[in-house]
Amino acid sequence: MPVAAVRAQTRQKDLCDADGIRAIQMDSEEMHVKSYRKVLYFNTPTRRAYINITPQVQQCIDESGIKDGLVLVNAMNITASVFVNDDEPGLHHDFEVWLEKLAPEKPYSQYEHNGFEDNADAHLKRQIMGREVVAAITNGKLDFGTWEQIFYGEFDGKREKRVLVKIIGE
Amino acid sequence: MPVAAVRAQTRQKDLCDADGIRAIQMDSEEMHVKSYRKVLYFNTPTRRAYINITPQVQQCIDESGIKDGLVLVNAMNITASVFVNDDEPGLHHDFEVWLEKLAPEKPYSQYEHNGFEDNADAHLKRQIMGREVVAAITNGKLDFGTWEQIFYGEFDGKREKRVLVKIIGE
Amino acid sequence: MPVAAVRAQTRQKDLCDADGIRAIQMDSEEMHVKSYRKVLYFNTPTRRAYINITPQVQQCIDESGIKDGLVLVNAMNITASVFVNDDEPGLHHDFEVWLEKLAPEKPYSQYEHNGFEDNADAHLKRQIMGREVVAAITNGKLDFGTWEQIFYGEFDGKREKRVLVKIIGE
Repeated sequence: MPVAAVRAQTRQKDLCDADGIRAIQMDSEEMHVKSYRKVLYFNTPTRRAYINITPQVQQCIDESGIKDGLVLVNAMNITASVFVNDDEPGLHHDFEVWLEKLAPEKPYSQYEHNGFEDNADAHLKRQIMGREVVAAITNGKLDFGTWEQIFYGEFDGKREKRVLVKIIGE
Repeated sequence: MPVAAVRAQTRQKDLCDADGIRAIQMDSEEMHVKSYRKVLYFNTPTRRAYINITPQVQQCIDESGIKDGLVLVNAMNITASVFVNDDEPGLHHDFEVWLEKLAPEKPYSQYEHNGFEDNADAHLKRQIMGREVVAAITNGKLDFGTWEQIFYGEFDGKREKRVLVKIIGE
Repeated sequence: MPVAAVRAQTRQKDLCDADGIRAIQMDSEEMHVKSYRKVLYFNTPTRRAYINITPQVQQCIDESGIKDGLVLVNAMNITASVFVNDDEPGLHHDFEVWLEKLAPEKPYSQYEHNGFEDNADAHLKRQIMGREVVAAITNGKLDFGTWEQIFYGEFDGKREKRVLVKIIGE
């Protein structure tokens, strides 16, 4: 399989159309499917945080023995996100400023949800950043571009939160 | 399988790293994969609405007989969303106010799309709230956190709209 | 399979509840699962662009021979999106104006990420528009609503970028 994959990477096809779309292809193969499940736990010392969980997700793939398939990684709490972006502290600062502008934490009274809660902003921020990532597994690895990293985005921390990793494949 | 799952839930592992990530794991098993498909229909009396469709999605899983796999739930219309958040009316009011601030319905003339339409804002709102949810199925149930609920978000209602439920698993 | 699908489409069920949710169902069948992978390449002449890649994704499905399953289509770069919306130039203009309002490109100095880069806004825009689409395949076709089209959204173009297409199914 690794050899076939490398060959596929070098067997480039012609341009498909004027938009400059080119394509590289791997052949289909019959699979013996199995599944794998793990829960990751988080307890951040701050209300908001961005944690790179790519190593933990790759470790799940390694443990599963699955070489080819799909991995779902989703927040199990509705005030947190799982998303793919850059592992660059400047960008994470920009996320913080930007999300506070689009869905400010305070004043708490601006949100009806905040009768007994103070986390309405976290429910909104999570809609922008997203609940889940679905990624491909190829040759036993996350099939990622150069800079893709999976993050857990916490918007209402200081307590135990969970992320589900579910893998389907061969 | 239920017994194995319960055992997995109680066989906790050590902390993985300094960020406080803990993990619980289930072993992989070979699967006999099948698929299932259903379309849900909606016709809301208001332009915008949030409808909890978790029971309908769980019913699809029950009907499919699939115990372990993935379920895709997506809006088939491009002015509606499927997303996971809290079943709390105050929050839904906050969504309404917030989305109207980020992507206001009126004046209609502010959008080029509104030549023959008046729903450009609905196309934008749906980008923030998302088109689809992919969820795990474990032991025949939606593998959800305590407060996770699946919603159909309507942004241009008063006519028939559709949601696709597609399940792959064993 | 096509005949069964048509029959399913005409075997409608009663309303499920007062929200007007109706359902149409297809029976589950055992599958012989395989996978398929292709990378699409883009090099847009402008910084931002929206390219309809539905024909390329359908071509992948055709090449895979997979009739029933899931297709993942994701940007492999973190300054680009894959999303589903309308193929209507007025709406794409509205996206451009709207995203510039929510996450403006300039002044570059407003973002900490822009120390050696000028594309922080592209990282933010991609969070709103999303990284990936997961779509159902039924009877060998994208199982889409009438107006659903898959787009590549470029927010930092003028260089080679990639999109991954991964298919799992029978």
